[in-house]
Amino acid sequence: MKGCLYAIGTGPGSSDLITVRAARLLARLDVLYAPAGKRGGDSLALSIVREYLGAQVEIRERHFPMSTHGDEKETLWDQVAEELRQDVESGLQVGFVTLGDAMLFSTWVFLLERLQGRIPMEVIPGVTSFACISARAQFPLAMEQQSLAIVSCTASEAALEQALRQHECVVLMKVYGRFGRVRDLLGRLGLLPHALLMAEASLPTEQCFRQLHEVDGELSLPYFSTILVNKQWLAAPVEEVA
Amino acid sequence: MKGCLYAIGTGPGSSDLITVRAARLLARLDVLYAPAGKRGGDSLALSIVREYLGAQVEIRERHFPMSTHGDEKETLWDQVAEELRQDVESGLQVGFVTLGDAMLFSTWVFLLERLQGRIPMEVIPGVTSFACISARAQFPLAMEQQSLAIVSCTASEAALEQALRQHECVVLMKVYGRFGRVRDLLGRLGLLPHALLMAEASLPTEQCFRQLHEVDGELSLPYFSTILVNKQWLAAPVEEVA
Repeated sequence: MKGCLYAIGTGPGSSDLITVRAARLLARLDVLYAPAGKRGGDSLALSIVREYLGAQVEIRERHFPMSTHGDEKETLWDQVAEELRQDVESGLQVGFVTLGDAMLFSTWVFLLERLQGRIPMEVIPGVTSFACISARAQFPLAMEQQSLAIVSCTASEAALEQALRQHECVVLMKVYGRFGRVRDLLGRLGLLPHALLMAEASLPTEQCFRQLHEVDGELSLPYFSTILVNKQWLAAPVEEVA
Repeated sequence: MKGCLYAIGTGPGSSDLITVRAARLLARLDVLYAPAGKRGGDSLALSIVREYLGAQVEIRERHFPMSTHGDEKETLWDQVAEELRQDVESGLQVGFVTLGDAMLFSTWVFLLERLQGRIPMEVIPGVTSFACISARAQFPLAMEQQSLAIVSCTASEAALEQALRQHECVVLMKVYGRFGRVRDLLGRLGLLPHALLMAEASLPTEQCFRQLHEVDGELSLPYFSTILVNKQWLAAPVEEVA
């Protein structure tokens, strides 16, 4: 049997939001590469897929740097890429798990650019965090005739303002540590009634804030925090029918 | 047992790209609403989920208008919403399938705005068409520090140009019937080396074009045709390692 590398998007966090293709594949892998967890526990990506792994799967936890910049990080990515290449060339079915979708804001791309065309590979797409947030909050990402921008709050305030002015719908990722400033910008643009904030969507620790003008600007947020804006939809609390 | 409405994103087309949550749910529904297919066959959404349906599931095919505009269409949506509401209130587990993700460019939103807060409901997110295209083509949607815009080619040329100038990555949906003009715009902006076109991703009829300057502007495309642009990535053909 020929070896192959599979980059697997795990979806946003809940184990049952991975695809059927990913679940079937995880059962028959030889090796799975996963980010190293903190304090000896599983990383989130590994904890999502663990229930689907076949008994034969060897888990190899590796430290994956979050960015490719700097010589040291380049060397680390080179080493992981070389390990993967050798595994595949020796005929193994090799998986690599990555949160959300594999091709959107994922460190998988640092391996793709090193290995593309050199070994057989397949990318398994996943549900993005913002699709999950939109579903959980019942707040549409974008409707027909609208355009959608997905930007990180690490961008300049000018870039965020431009996106918020020019698109009807905006996903603001990485709100973590920047909530007060982003909330003020939304207020200045009159967009607070059309914005909501969600943290850790689909996990037991999920939190949703719909009246952002009432939220403390110093609010301490988890790392996975995202604001959705839709100019044609109101974020007012939905009366839950139980 | 209490009734509930489930809006289920089916993903882009291949049956195994639905989520595990959707697959499990489809097995235990009482009723599934699906778009009516053409010429008596299944609609694409129904064909994707059919293998997961429990034997007890009653399929109700309905004609869903593609837009909510016009009195006649409003009336049609009102009727479907009323049917769903009555089913749920009578205690049924009711599904509604929609291609891709349920909250992005989906007609599900016309039902959501009519039923939100009135009946128990849950939205199951799905893999978007563009995540699947990106995975199939091994062409990243966006890398860290990049921003991504998702726009329809039905927008004005000025709006498309603005998105292409201001974002490092752009998904151009609904290329169908507009390929020549969009290709010319990409050429004028120097983006052809960074763009690829895919039609019917994940289906047996999938087609991918990577050298858009060589493609006939009058190319006849299927309805589901999308162009991806990533200014940091080259779309040149990948040497496939078999």
